Amino acid sequence: MADQAAFARAVLVRFGDCDPAGIVFYPRYFEMFNNLVEDWCAQGLGASFRELHQERGLGLPTVSIQTEFVAPSRLGDLLRAELQVEKIGGASITVAIRLLGEDGAERVRASLVLVLMDLNTMRATRLPDAMRARIAPFGPVESH
Amino acid sequence: MADQAAFARAVLVRFGDCDPAGIVFYPRYFEMFNNLVEDWCAQGLGASFRELHQERGLGLPTVSIQTEFVAPSRLGDLLRAELQVEKIGGASITVAIRLLGEDGAERVRASLVLVLMDLNTMRATRLPDAMRARIAPFGPVESH
Amino acid sequence: MADQAAFARAVLVRFGDCDPAGIVFYPRYFEMFNNLVEDWCAQGLGASFRELHQERGLGLPTVSIQTEFVAPSRLGDLLRAELQVEKIGGASITVAIRLLGEDGAERVRASLVLVLMDLNTMRATRLPDAMRARIAPFGPVESH
Amino acid sequence: MADQAAFARAVLVRFGDCDPAGIVFYPRYFEMFNNLVEDWCAQGLGASFRELHQERGLGLPTVSIQTEFVAPSRLGDLLRAELQVEKIGGASITVAIRLLGEDGAERVRASLVLVLMDLNTMRATRLPDAMRARIAPFGPVESH
Repeated sequence: MADQAAFARAVLVRFGDCDPAGIVFYPRYFEMFNNLVEDWCAQGLGASFRELHQERGLGLPTVSIQTEFVAPSRLGDLLRAELQVEKIGGASITVAIRLLGEDGAERVRASLVLVLMDLNTMRATRLPDAMRARIAPFGPVESH
Repeated sequence: MADQAAFARAVLVRFGDCDPAGIVFYPRYFEMFNNLVEDWCAQGLGASFRELHQERGLGLPTVSIQTEFVAPSRLGDLLRAELQVEKIGGASITVAIRLLGEDGAERVRASLVLVLMDLNTMRATRLPDAMRARIAPFGPVESH
Repeated sequence: MADQAAFARAVLVRFGDCDPAGIVFYPRYFEMFNNLVEDWCAQGLGASFRELHQERGLGLPTVSIQTEFVAPSRLGDLLRAELQVEKIGGASITVAIRLLGEDGAERVRASLVLVLMDLNTMRATRLPDAMRARIAPFGPVESH
Repeated sequence: MADQAAFARAVLVRFGDCDPAGIVFYPRYFEMFNNLVEDWCAQGLGASFRELHQERGLGLPTVSIQTEFVAPSRLGDLLRAELQVEKIGGASITVAIRLLGEDGAERVRASLVLVLMDLNTMRATRLPDAMRARIAPFGPVESH
């Protein structure tokens, strides 16, 4: 994936993220994933969740996730959260998310399938061309 | 408040409620409060949040809370959550919530002001008489 | 999996579980999963998280999860959460979790790998025989 | 409080903070408060929660909160969170927190009493002089 841009943000592991063992309580990672997708839409694709939901009647629900918790993270760790597009389908986007420690070692990696949904019909709807054009730079470089 | 019924539920302190010090992370107590109010509406007043929100266009937001965290609670504690009505106003209900340990000692006590809201106009709306009649048994005994 | 016992609990979809689209915010499902595993340990296996963590120095972290969000769940839905054991390894347990609607239709299904961890060494440790004996009834029936 | 410095941070209202009515689910505000106190300790006072908890055996639990929810906040709102010190006691700090909309109007205001706690004895312990010196600039200007 060397030729591909990643959308990246820093994520601080906060007190409220951690469990009695002093490490991140794993459901909190999924909130981190959702925040990253939200930031990617707003900043990377130019379409905030507010705009999608309230102005365009569109949602981007997650329909499946595979997650590997490679190593624990602790209170105060400053993680790097990265998102890359693995695949663009008709209505779906498959994204890879990785959380890395300050040493660059992988803590969590996940693959999520997001689907563009028409909130009125509650059915999947084709990704508009304008959105595809914004997604493409985060996606796999196609070979010809 | 001896002559007054309390609405009570058991609340188990779960792993995900606890922080690295092994005690309840205090924002989780407010989720417990909201769950208790939700159960009281559904079971005590006969009007679930789903019915209020989706069928009747009504919300019951919390407009103020005072909370004292008297003693910490730990993973696995089985708390008793109690709700009593302190005051019924035109559109508002003031409720007292207490969380007690298995020995009956107070862990948390709070006073919340809830307001009935018309979700269309986003304005406070008078508590209907049918709802008042259901609230009264949880309220203070009036002296004559 | 017809010959196999499932550990099952009812889970109410609460106000705080739902997002602005009125459906469960998906990270909340992972809290439901963790609560179910916690109840299964305490009630099914006879070893609460409190006992494991504080008395025996053991943790049961989740090392991987695959999740399919089959259909959305809404405020007030009363879900049936089921856990079955798919595989018992040296230090690991693979469990299948399903959340079902009141009509029995699948809403979410997941497969989680849990690993027994010695919290002092932070290394995986073999599941004790007494625990294996308690896990077995929830596991696959072995053919001979 | 014109002569007094406030510790301030921007807080984005995220999808996962909002309820089916499209506004912030109030328990999430307390997570915002705790994050703000955490950032103030780390950046304002030079003592992160990680350092306090893990190196110095100190906690800073919240023992009481009064909160007024003045106006709702919505998905995508960029709030300004402000913290000012109202009072410094022997072991306690009373802080005022305000969340403001982009127009400067108040959304939420709260007063929290924090107590420095020795995590070994689980008793309140006097604020060290070095910490007092760091707190003072955020506190009320004393008249002479």
